[in-house]
Amino acid sequence: MNRIHNFSAGPAVLPESIVRQAQKDLYNHENTGLGIVECSHRSAQFDTVINSAKTRLHSLLGCDDDQEVLFLHGGARTQFYMLPMNLLRGGKAAYLDTGKWAEGAVEDAQRYGDIDVLFSSKETHWDRIPRQSDYAIEKGTRYLHYTSNNTVSGTEFHYRPEVPDGTWLMCDMSSNILSRRMDGSKFDFIYAGAQKNLGPSGTTVVIIRKSLLAQCDPNLPAMLRYGIHVAKDSMYNTPCTFSIYVIELMLRWITDQGGVDVVEARNRAHARKVYDLIDGSDFWTGKTAIDARSLMNLTFTTGNDRLDTTFWQTAANEGLSGLKGHRSVGGLRASLYNAQNDVSVDALCAFMRDFERQQG
Amino acid sequence: MNRIHNFSAGPAVLPESIVRQAQKDLYNHENTGLGIVECSHRSAQFDTVINSAKTRLHSLLGCDDDQEVLFLHGGARTQFYMLPMNLLRGGKAAYLDTGKWAEGAVEDAQRYGDIDVLFSSKETHWDRIPRQSDYAIEKGTRYLHYTSNNTVSGTEFHYRPEVPDGTWLMCDMSSNILSRRMDGSKFDFIYAGAQKNLGPSGTTVVIIRKSLLAQCDPNLPAMLRYGIHVAKDSMYNTPCTFSIYVIELMLRWITDQGGVDVVEARNRAHARKVYDLIDGSDFWTGKTAIDARSLMNLTFTTGNDRLDTTFWQTAANEGLSGLKGHRSVGGLRASLYNAQNDVSVDALCAFMRDFERQQG
Repeated sequence: MNRIHNFSAGPAVLPESIVRQAQKDLYNHENTGLGIVECSHRSAQFDTVINSAKTRLHSLLGCDDDQEVLFLHGGARTQFYMLPMNLLRGGKAAYLDTGKWAEGAVEDAQRYGDIDVLFSSKETHWDRIPRQSDYAIEKGTRYLHYTSNNTVSGTEFHYRPEVPDGTWLMCDMSSNILSRRMDGSKFDFIYAGAQKNLGPSGTTVVIIRKSLLAQCDPNLPAMLRYGIHVAKDSMYNTPCTFSIYVIELMLRWITDQGGVDVVEARNRAHARKVYDLIDGSDFWTGKTAIDARSLMNLTFTTGNDRLDTTFWQTAANEGLSGLKGHRSVGGLRASLYNAQNDVSVDALCAFMRDFERQQG
Repeated sequence: MNRIHNFSAGPAVLPESIVRQAQKDLYNHENTGLGIVECSHRSAQFDTVINSAKTRLHSLLGCDDDQEVLFLHGGARTQFYMLPMNLLRGGKAAYLDTGKWAEGAVEDAQRYGDIDVLFSSKETHWDRIPRQSDYAIEKGTRYLHYTSNNTVSGTEFHYRPEVPDGTWLMCDMSSNILSRRMDGSKFDFIYAGAQKNLGPSGTTVVIIRKSLLAQCDPNLPAMLRYGIHVAKDSMYNTPCTFSIYVIELMLRWITDQGGVDVVEARNRAHARKVYDLIDGSDFWTGKTAIDARSLMNLTFTTGNDRLDTTFWQTAANEGLSGLKGHRSVGGLRASLYNAQNDVSVDALCAFMRDFERQQG
């Protein structure tokens, strides 16, 4: 059996060339005679991998010299509390509640300070993104936190929020990191679970300003202190070596494709194909405000729960996997991360047209 | 180039049959058309994997119905603080300081209560293990914590500490879990990083008594609450799917070998070969008390730092990798976890004999 079309929201499809490379390296990596998951994380062999991943991510994101790239455990969810635990410390922070994970970040942050939820689209099922003019950040706010792409509802920020001087900008980029040009240097704190645009699950990328380290709570267990992870170069304990290894391949692949701009153009073309199909038909309806549509997670519906179920089930039977909407919202969702390929996007569009013809 | 002999202390060698299986499944797992790291952690495909891993680990460890198996993030080090944060809560706990990681566990625990270090072999470079008669547990002690095998110094508990009624028994089994019969049902809390005896790095196995959940601090961020991980079946957020997948293969492999007893017998035979060689020669010296010797991490020295360095460097050049002692203690170390094979152990012994002949 061949590989099928994979629209999973994460863990998600990888480029086939990377899967082939990983197969080889599992057995014998770089002719060392050791498999990539069987060598010490402190070996020269792995050192080369993690250093390359760090340098490449720093460069592809456009970070500056004050920013440090870390590969940590725990998923993005661990950052929901680790970030405010370190950097809020009883102060005030502003959060934009644009989705299920943004809400989770608010819940955890409330333990560590005074949280201003400046905007929430929860009542309309997180179907929209605020404009800059929809919210104002109070003076004395330590940071603004937002989720740049909302995997569940299928919305995305198409601008970077502005923050006043003295307020830090923190962003959960889990589901759209490196999918578009973002100018990493404009952020004070970035985090992202790997399992969408970067590689397999098991690693969370954190980019923190070194100038923020002195502001972190020094009275925390070692594993929860960013300063220790920076000082130990993400090696305070054994990191998830396989995930970091694949991330390095993915970053190399982005460069080989022509860089973030080329990947972004392809992502836009993929999303446009599907959204154009949705907008050009009365059968399909997009689930979000048009100006908030995500390039990564495209949510749509036939307007009929039973028909939606028939769609994703039939699709799965015909080799298009992962099109069921998130269990909390229903409907349909196609995830088109960086590694998504033209053939699968075309197959999806063809299948949607056929389905409409048969059911419409 | 063929695969070489791998004595890494972790991440460590896997059985070649498992590496071969993982190579296939990376591309197309169980004929689903999806690679094992590219499918959703909530898919039926992965559900089968994690459920099997859970059931097999529960059974191979000899756990009882009150015990729940979790696959968490963060390495064993995260348990150093998560355990006392949840279950100490200002009370008193006893710790046995038998090594570098035991000491790390003490440091974190001191934030959450009154820690009695009942025994420490730090002054003699953690070269020994206390007898039961060497320490007494005070009444009112919430739990005893110990590290069943000490990866750095190369010592191991060859008995299970007894605790008085009302005191829980907690164990960091990172480096010897399932290497020998241990009767999991006698423990109240077990944890182990996967990357030694169980699979690749990225997952920490936690086994907690369900009857302890009501005693856990309920006022913690969600990711730090054992109760939530139990309720969500290790799926509160995206787990490290690759690592759990390989763990499942390793557990299946242990059963296929004939179970823990067969694996233990082989581990004992491997260790005996090397220790007999050390004891039968004036050239080599074991680094620990004889009755405390680990079956997993065998530490030894020529007694001469420069010669030790020549040994592991020459060995590495000749295809025996990972024999350098931990950077904090120097000397030599051979790690012989479950997946270690007869051929590599024999190659090590032959190389040691040759080296002695040439240098001695």
